[in-house]
Amino acid sequence: MTAYTTNPELDLVLERTVDVAPELVWKCWTTPELIVRWFAPKPWSTSSCEIDLQPGGRFHTVMRSPEGEEFPSDGCILVVEEGSTLVFTSALGPGFRPQVAEDGFPFTAVVRIAPDGAGTRYTATAIHADASARKQHEDMGFTEGWGAALDQLVDVAKSL
Amino acid sequence: MTAYTTNPELDLVLERTVDVAPELVWKCWTTPELIVRWFAPKPWSTSSCEIDLQPGGRFHTVMRSPEGEEFPSDGCILVVEEGSTLVFTSALGPGFRPQVAEDGFPFTAVVRIAPDGAGTRYTATAIHADASARKQHEDMGFTEGWGAALDQLVDVAKSL
Repeated sequence: MTAYTTNPELDLVLERTVDVAPELVWKCWTTPELIVRWFAPKPWSTSSCEIDLQPGGRFHTVMRSPEGEEFPSDGCILVVEEGSTLVFTSALGPGFRPQVAEDGFPFTAVVRIAPDGAGTRYTATAIHADASARKQHEDMGFTEGWGAALDQLVDVAKSL
Repeated sequence: MTAYTTNPELDLVLERTVDVAPELVWKCWTTPELIVRWFAPKPWSTSSCEIDLQPGGRFHTVMRSPEGEEFPSDGCILVVEEGSTLVFTSALGPGFRPQVAEDGFPFTAVVRIAPDGAGTRYTATAIHADASARKQHEDMGFTEGWGAALDQLVDVAKSL
């Protein structure tokens, strides 16, 4: 069992029902070859991804801007509940090593996946240290970005 | 299974064999009423402790200086392998929420406990972001402090 506390003043939530099965959503989130197809909202892309799917394991992506600039990001996986919950954080690197977040504020992502009819109730929460980090993340376009990425994930899932 | 990578240039390790059973060492590390009896090297003391023993749970202590000044510290539990491994970090607070470490550098503590004859092989590792944090922690007296605390833990374990 895992303890979560979300706080609307500090956290950002994207919650939607999508018409693909939970197993496929889980597969898209945990398979590097699939992550690169949906993780970055177009016209950005994901040029590489590495996932060591266990607590303490690496969650690594490289996002590429339309101009070709690359932005690597290293995180640490915290929770793997097969088919239902994936948690990772940018406050730690692989092996739970503390790290300074490249983008100025660390956050923890909690991705929850639950059956909803034939589809999936999808809840992605970004947990921040304080309200200023939440605002920074919101201003960077969290809702639009994670929403567009989810649309792309659904397209990938339907292609499987 | 959990992934660890330790690096002698970034990490500090205290490794010793002690003559109390692993179950007692585990109990001393995970029971707030026992933590307050050994966690702070004398003449410091631990005035309170709260532990929610699950990933994402709180690891909270308040240390008190000989002059009576109190130093609260909040951390997040990452791994609980009953009787053998406890991992927590000051880079996150309860619920995996990123936090700024009060003492200037975050670290992750990995406490490993294994049978060694009738006693326990005890390995405590402090994992840092960089060599400067390692040095800061070393200069604060990591080895002496964690060593003295372990002596106190052994005394508590023998009293149980």
